[in-house]
Amino acid sequence: MGNELFAGIDIGGTSVKLAFITNEGDLLKKWEIPTDTTNNGMNIVNDISETVKANLEVHQTLMGAGVGAPGFIEMETGFIYHAVNIGWRDYPLKDELEKALGVVVRVDNDANLAALGEKWQGAGDGANEQLFVTLGTGVGGGIITRGQILHGVGGMGGEIGHITSVKEGGSLCNCGKTGCLETVSSATGMVRLAKEKLEAGRASTLSQSDSLILTTKEIFEAAKAGDLVAAEVIMEAIDHLGYAIANLANTLNPAKIVIGGGVSKAGEDLLAPLRVVFDQYALPRVVEQAEIKLAHLGNDAGIYGAVWLAIQAVKANKK
Amino acid sequence: MGNELFAGIDIGGTSVKLAFITNEGDLLKKWEIPTDTTNNGMNIVNDISETVKANLEVHQTLMGAGVGAPGFIEMETGFIYHAVNIGWRDYPLKDELEKALGVVVRVDNDANLAALGEKWQGAGDGANEQLFVTLGTGVGGGIITRGQILHGVGGMGGEIGHITSVKEGGSLCNCGKTGCLETVSSATGMVRLAKEKLEAGRASTLSQSDSLILTTKEIFEAAKAGDLVAAEVIMEAIDHLGYAIANLANTLNPAKIVIGGGVSKAGEDLLAPLRVVFDQYALPRVVEQAEIKLAHLGNDAGIYGAVWLAIQAVKANKK
Repeated sequence: MGNELFAGIDIGGTSVKLAFITNEGDLLKKWEIPTDTTNNGMNIVNDISETVKANLEVHQTLMGAGVGAPGFIEMETGFIYHAVNIGWRDYPLKDELEKALGVVVRVDNDANLAALGEKWQGAGDGANEQLFVTLGTGVGGGIITRGQILHGVGGMGGEIGHITSVKEGGSLCNCGKTGCLETVSSATGMVRLAKEKLEAGRASTLSQSDSLILTTKEIFEAAKAGDLVAAEVIMEAIDHLGYAIANLANTLNPAKIVIGGGVSKAGEDLLAPLRVVFDQYALPRVVEQAEIKLAHLGNDAGIYGAVWLAIQAVKANKK
Repeated sequence: MGNELFAGIDIGGTSVKLAFITNEGDLLKKWEIPTDTTNNGMNIVNDISETVKANLEVHQTLMGAGVGAPGFIEMETGFIYHAVNIGWRDYPLKDELEKALGVVVRVDNDANLAALGEKWQGAGDGANEQLFVTLGTGVGGGIITRGQILHGVGGMGGEIGHITSVKEGGSLCNCGKTGCLETVSSATGMVRLAKEKLEAGRASTLSQSDSLILTTKEIFEAAKAGDLVAAEVIMEAIDHLGYAIANLANTLNPAKIVIGGGVSKAGEDLLAPLRVVFDQYALPRVVEQAEIKLAHLGNDAGIYGAVWLAIQAVKANKK
């Protein structure tokens, strides 16, 4: 049934990304619309519904939709408690979209959907036991066990960015705790570590860069060119990340550990030292069974994951 | 059908514990037989089968059996790769027991079965998201997500005793790594910490005890009576345990954290400081949603968990 397709939808604070994907994972079309945050986001569902319908060709049938949404979500009901960027508060996103689109809708958060997307069409190779880590402005995560996302009792499952990595004297995190993994191993964290070293008077080629726009790309490049401060920042970030992932792997015993997000563009410069740290702290059998890989799908991972969720929902309804 | 019952079987190095339990969780009978480790353990299945059949009353029907076994187990097939204490090597325990008993058999390891037992009939109150920790000679664990044991890809799931707690300069663990949680928060680990402090010349009432047989009970009693060294040992063990559990909870978002094993006999003297450490390192929402409790079933937890697994297997077969 090549004419049956699913909508993958990623709702962000400035734009809504959309795609049509078949149940074999072929991406047929991808586009975006601006996010209308006026009126507490009450126009968004209608905007999505209209653009989805307008983009369907005559011979195509929409079977279901998966949505990535920000904020605190109750996964089973697709209810959004609060999404600051959008304006939603106690908003039944899933129900509203199902009404507007006339098909089954599933909702989850970005990192969980990216984990599912990589499992289905990316680096995860379909393995049922996976740990997905995204290194960007923050550190996000999605854990897959027995082929499904681990949500925990209240949807906080996989929030690995808030593992406490610096037990004493760590930096303040957005979550209110100190020393979270996110404060040292995210892009923001690495730039902060570099600035601290520069402010302490350490000599580094990084000080020639405008420190307001210092990026992890510059840090990786400086380290490659022999800059000691940059190399230290990278080792510090990777030591904390490898330690956290190893301890999780000792508990979760994953087949794949997939690393995505902006920082992962460093590629093997990130993965090679990460594997060394991982091997040091993880059990030998756990190391043997876990493959550490770069994510493949980039920013599309969440849209694929959203569609995968929608496909499962349609299958379950047919039973 | 009050006459239908299940066998819960816990195979240890010196004895096999057995029980008949109904599918409502009523324990009807409990007994044990010695473990015959001669002939590489090849008589054990026959011994179990005979004692189970001999103990069934005329009006009773055996519906299935669950077994806790030592060693490396392939959970799906119930195949034992190697159980040093017993002598088994590449032994199809599940298949052999099914042949001997004529009913469905399920096999898992002790800590996982204890987790399921506490969930079903103990402190876990049936919650589908749980972390079970057992503090004994070692530190064991069992993780329940979506109501089932998290095994991981190779059955190493829940091996929380080998989370690296002391990053640098930790003691050697049986697993070959250093600084594992087990080296500081197990009974053995706490006694080792105490002995180190005594050997360093610290004054303590513990030095009056025969240090060869020093127990965690003595350490908790000494701390209560004001002994500073004993108090330090307990705080060190609990700090590492609380930190590890908090970081796991940040990832797993459990509803219940159940603490069992010999050390847990210290009760609130263990739990009260553990909660303080946990609250410090876990996300506020994770803290709110997680209840830390003592295990209820003691040494019977595994037998209940084994029966629960067998009940699920019989239900699945009926579908």
